[in-house]
This record gives sequence, structure tokens and C-alpha cells, in this order.
Amino acid sequence: MDRIDADRLLGDLATLRSFGAHGNGVVRTMFSEIDVAAREWLVERMSEAGLEARIDGVGSVYGRSPNPGPAVVLGSHTDTQPEGGWLDGAMGVIHGLEVARALLADPATSHLAVDVASWADEEGTYGGFLGSRSFVGALTDEDFQATNADGESVQQVLDRLGWADRPRAELDPARHVAALESHIEQGPHLEHQGLRIGAVTAIVGIRGYEVVFSGQQNHAGTTPMDLRKDAAMAMFHFCSALDDRLRAAAGERSVWTVGQVSVEPGAPSIVPGRATIAIQFRDADDTVLDRMASVVEALVAERHSPDGVHVEITDRRRPLAPAPMESGVVAHVSAAAEAIAPGAWTHMPSAAGHDAQVLAPHLPTGMIFIPSINGVSHDFAEDSDHADIVLGAEVLADAVVRILS
Amino acid sequence: MDRIDADRLLGDLATLRSFGAHGNGVVRTMFSEIDVAAREWLVERMSEAGLEARIDGVGSVYGRSPNPGPAVVLGSHTDTQPEGGWLDGAMGVIHGLEVARALLADPATSHLAVDVASWADEEGTYGGFLGSRSFVGALTDEDFQATNADGESVQQVLDRLGWADRPRAELDPARHVAALESHIEQGPHLEHQGLRIGAVTAIVGIRGYEVVFSGQQNHAGTTPMDLRKDAAMAMFHFCSALDDRLRAAAGERSVWTVGQVSVEPGAPSIVPGRATIAIQFRDADDTVLDRMASVVEALVAERHSPDGVHVEITDRRRPLAPAPMESGVVAHVSAAAEAIAPGAWTHMPSAAGHDAQVLAPHLPTGMIFIPSINGVSHDFAEDSDHADIVLGAEVLADAVVRILS
Repeated sequence: MDRIDADRLLGDLATLRSFGAHGNGVVRTMFSEIDVAAREWLVERMSEAGLEARIDGVGSVYGRSPNPGPAVVLGSHTDTQPEGGWLDGAMGVIHGLEVARALLADPATSHLAVDVASWADEEGTYGGFLGSRSFVGALTDEDFQATNADGESVQQVLDRLGWADRPRAELDPARHVAALESHIEQGPHLEHQGLRIGAVTAIVGIRGYEVVFSGQQNHAGTTPMDLRKDAAMAMFHFCSALDDRLRAAAGERSVWTVGQVSVEPGAPSIVPGRATIAIQFRDADDTVLDRMASVVEALVAERHSPDGVHVEITDRRRPLAPAPMESGVVAHVSAAAEAIAPGAWTHMPSAAGHDAQVLAPHLPTGMIFIPSINGVSHDFAEDSDHADIVLGAEVLADAVVRILS
Repeated sequence: MDRIDADRLLGDLATLRSFGAHGNGVVRTMFSEIDVAAREWLVERMSEAGLEARIDGVGSVYGRSPNPGPAVVLGSHTDTQPEGGWLDGAMGVIHGLEVARALLADPATSHLAVDVASWADEEGTYGGFLGSRSFVGALTDEDFQATNADGESVQQVLDRLGWADRPRAELDPARHVAALESHIEQGPHLEHQGLRIGAVTAIVGIRGYEVVFSGQQNHAGTTPMDLRKDAAMAMFHFCSALDDRLRAAAGERSVWTVGQVSVEPGAPSIVPGRATIAIQFRDADDTVLDRMASVVEALVAERHSPDGVHVEITDRRRPLAPAPMESGVVAHVSAAAEAIAPGAWTHMPSAAGHDAQVLAPHLPTGMIFIPSINGVSHDFAEDSDHADIVLGAEVLADAVVRILS
């Protein structure tokens, strides 16, 4: 398989990395000056590759193949976290560019239609997944009012950039037959198993809760233990029990996290009157998520105490349903992986969210993972082996050919 | 017993309250403009009462009886918390003024020597207990470098006020035979038991620890449970176990608090890499404090894990030893309480710190408590029944007469 030009692929990735480079990592948050410059560069590279490329009305870069359908949509995102890695999203976009370019240049495949996208705001600088949600027709007026940390709304920034009246890329059921996103794993599984390719079977769903413990702030010396309504102590026992019970209820790949904790007023000599925690858990199976949710709800119900510390779920985050990848697409990805990296690939779920989960309910979708060194992501230290980056592009190209043949 | 002039006592307390009044409460932090004005007013009232009064070289107001010893020192403090109550400290000072005044005016007791103090900085706007520590000769040069939240040192403010070169009130073993401090309880015990006077037997000691949990910050989706080093989860289990074990090791009146908690970086989607807590516990018995300290140290040693989350005590606060009140003084206070409020008093420890604990190792010392409404203190809502305030002064006067007779 010599469709992929490794030097060209890695060269384009290096150039994209130079937009916002920060040590080993990248700072290129959505709609920042450097992000806009990177989008304009990407439009040029796509055009050179023979795609009809433009930045659309929500900021996505979309390169349409000049060929008629059936078409496959490749891509990911070029925006980053505030302290982002150089491959998270970027690799999938440049993989798409390289595969479209390589297939167009090869007389044997030049008739195949491959569109390439860099979906806007995957990292949620604004509302999150703006580009892929726009593509499937899921954006509402409200989404354009979402603001970044500086308080500028999507609508305001689009007006300022002069992009607001541009048409937006749209899913065309008559043309698009599948979507594929390649991405770094962002976890340790492939590396730990000594494998090089993951054929993603599903993207995990996420449930989130905010739980508040309301007690009575008081003097830490003069308030006897039996008269205390200590919000922090109630929270410690709750979280300890929650961890034990979730361990029993969870699936093999489930994860759960209490990542945000605040205790008020927060002084060594004051019995805390209020504590707030954010609970989050993920699994690829909605049945498991339901079971874990029952654990949270039951524990809150048990501990709810009008006389002592009052425990209450104050926010249930909009649940993100697990997104199974389409079995036909997964089969093509698996066949491509076995052809190109025999015995060095596995089926696996994705533990992180991706544009693919937005697309999956609307067209047959799949994902390809390559290993992350030490499983690190959302961090300047994020990295992958160059050989794995090239291998991922080869598997992606082969999967596209299989899907369109 | 009609030694105490209730109207004069309550009138002086109301005037003192007007310095820094804030709703029901008072804002009169040490060395603030309003605190200095209150000290100058207090010098005038003491002088009118026949005491030789002055502000001394560390900011304490000291009114010396014109009579030769043996003398009793009465008093407390007139500085307040940033959001203080109107009685915390203030009552004990005005009680002292009223008792000295009443005894001097009564031919039967006009020969008794009663000194009265408002000790500087009890509330720790600077280093804490500056006045009483100066009185017993425990201040060091370092104490004069302690700063308030604005960064001004004790030395700087004394220079600015022109008080730096004044002599400081000093304990005189040839003259002083006892110290008595009357105070609101700041807790709920007297009120709950329907009692009006507490004869304090000891002031609790305090131990404090800062404990840090160091794990590994990571992606809350892609990091499997068995590879996590979740600092927050380790902290929850630690605190839950700590509460259970301290309950078993503690005495009947022991209290323990985890009042300060910080979890970093503190985002719902990030496995916390670091958690920090402040543990504090109090008891009147050093043996009990030692037992509780062993629980903390043992739990840290057990959980200390170089492979997982690393648990470490990063700070042991300077322990405050329990201060037993002198048995002879306690006996006189008890006799006075029984004489004036028969059956309506009890022996009890003080769960909060007071100037009396600084004085206690140096001369026979006692404390008298009156009930706090709802046990509230260090809060604008702090209050006590006026009849209890007057009763407390009557018990104090009677105790002084008993000690000096």
C-alpha cells in the first residue's frame, strides 16, 4: 500500500502544528486569530488537492470532492483545548486531506468521492460540536448565542469575521453514504496491548450530576459533634460510598469521576455549611449507564435528610447517549486494519467524545484509533509515533476504498 | 446582691457596640480607626471609674486599681472578627469595668484591688492574643512583625499611632493573685440545659494538620479506573475513615473538623491530580488530643502509597495545649454562681480559645460563661439575654470578693 505520501502527510501536520505551537503542544482555540489563520491555510491545501473548499457559515472548513456520489465524509477538528496537544483533531483532518488527495491522484481511485471536513468547535470553546451538529441539521438559534469565556457569542464572532451569511455544509442523504473519523486514542489501551490500530465499535455515553450538600455553617470549636450539620463530612461519606457502589454496579470499561469539589466557607476553624460536587460517569452501554445512574439517585435518596445535612441533585447534565458505530463501516475498518496491520489491531470503544458521535445517528459512521504515547491527551505532552500516524492514514484510505467499492 | 448597676452596665455595652455597629453585629478589627476610637473611649470610662487607665505599648487598654494588691485582673478584648458579634470580648471588658467601679464605690469593698484589661488582638487580625501574651512576657520581636491582611505590621501600626514607645502592662507576681474572664459561651450547652452560668474548668487545646493527596491529573473519559491515581477519590475515602476512627478515639466533648478542601484542577471531565485538606480537632484533655493525633498519623501512614496516590502531612500547626483553669479560682466562681444563681449553673470546658488560656500558665485563672442564644457566635446574629449579661456581672463581682477575701 503506497497510496499515502508519508512525508507530505507529516509535513502538512507539522505546518498545521505551527499555527499556535506552544512547546510540544498547541494553543488554537476556536475562532481565535490563529485558529482562523489555520482554517484559511487548510482551505488552500484542500483546494490544491482538488477539493472545492471553503469556510462555511459556522466556521467549519469543508472540502467537497468534485466527483459525484456516493461519497464518504472524512475529518475531525482543528480547534484545540486551551492547552491542547498537536494531534487531537488535527491528525484526523490532515488524514482526510491526505486520503482525498492520494485517491484523487491515483487513476485507479480518482473517481471516488471523498469530502473532508474540519468541524467547528469540537472542543466546546462555545457550545461544542457546532460544525458536526450544523452538518446534521441539529443547530438551533440558541446555539448561535453560546459564548466563549470572554462573553463573545458565536453569532457575534461570525458577524465580525464576515462569515455569518455563508451557506453551511449540509449532510446530503443522496450523496453521503458514510463518515469516518481517525483520531488518537487519548487513552492507554492500544499501547498497553502492543497494538497499533483500534476499530471503534461505539463512543461512550456520558451522564453528569451536580450534587449539593446543605448543612449549617458553625464554629469548629464550640459546636458539639451531635449538633453539627457538617456539609463536608456528609460529602466525604457520600463520595466514599458512591465509589464503592459504582464499582459494584459498573461495567468492565466504565469510568466515574468526582472532578469538581467546593466546600464553603472553607476555613480550618469553621464547620462547612455547604459542599458541591460534580459527578460524571461514562460507558458505551446505556443499560450500564442506567444502572450507575440508579446508584447515584438511590444514594441521594438515602442520605436526603431534612434534619441533618440536606443532600440534593441540583443539576442533571444533558445526558450524552452512547453512539454505536455502524456495523458495516466497522467491518470495513476491521478488514482494512487486518489487511494493513495484520494481528496488530482490535475492536474497542472510544472513552472520549468525538464529532463521530454527532454524525452517527444520521449516517453510517466509524472511527479509527492510533495509540497515544503514555495515554496522554488534553495536555501539551500529547504525542504519537510517526509510524502510527502514517499507518492510520493507510488504514483510513483502505477503508474508504472498501466502503466505496 | 445589688452591687451591679444594670442600666449603667448595659448602657456602656450599648455605647461600645456603637463603635463599628453593623446591623445587629459589630465590625471593629484590631487597630482599625473605629477600634482605636473605642479604646480611647474605654480609657475615659475607666478613668471616670477611678482606675489609672492607659493604652499600652501593644495596644491593650489597661486600667490599674489605685489600691495596693493583692489584685485580681478582669477583662477580655474589644477587638472583633471581620464580621463580629457585639458581645464576644466586649462583654467581659465592660463586666470588668462595672465590677471594678461598683466595688470601688461600695465602702465595704472599696479597698479591693481590681485591674481591668482589654487585651489587644485577641481575634488574630495580626498574630493573635498580642495583649495577653505581652502581659505574661511571651511576646518576641517576631510578633511585632506579624501583619494584617493589608500587610501592615504591628510595629508599623504602633509607630503610626505613636504608641510604640509606651510601656506595656506587665504581670506583677507580687500584686496579681488571679485573673478572671467572663465571656459568652459561643456554643449551645448552657441554653440546651436551661442553665445561666458556666464555671469553666479548662480551655480546649487545638491540633491542626494540612494533608496533601498527590495523584495524576488525567482525562476522565479515557483513563481506565485501574490506571487512575485519583487524588480526590483517595481524599474522600481517607476523610470518611478519619471521621469513623476519630469518633471511636475521641472523648465525649471532642470535636473534629475538615473545614478546608481543595481539589485540583477542579473540572468535571478531569481526574483530579491533587487534593488538600485542613484537619482540626479540639479537646480539653491532652491525652485525648494525643489519641486523636495518633489516628491521623496512622491513617496517613496506612494510605501512604508510592505507587498510587501519595498521602502526606505537609503541615502540623503549632499545637495549642489545653489550659486547665486553677481549681481554687474555679471553686470561688462556683461558690459565687451557686450563691447568685442557685442550681442554674454548671462546670464546663470552653471549646473556643480565650485570653484566659494565655494567662492560665502564669497566674491562677478562671472563666465565667453566660448562654449564647442559639449557640451562635462569630456572626452578626450573636446575642445573649440582657438578664444573663447582668447575672454574669453579679457572679463575677461575687467571685472577685471571694478571691480577695
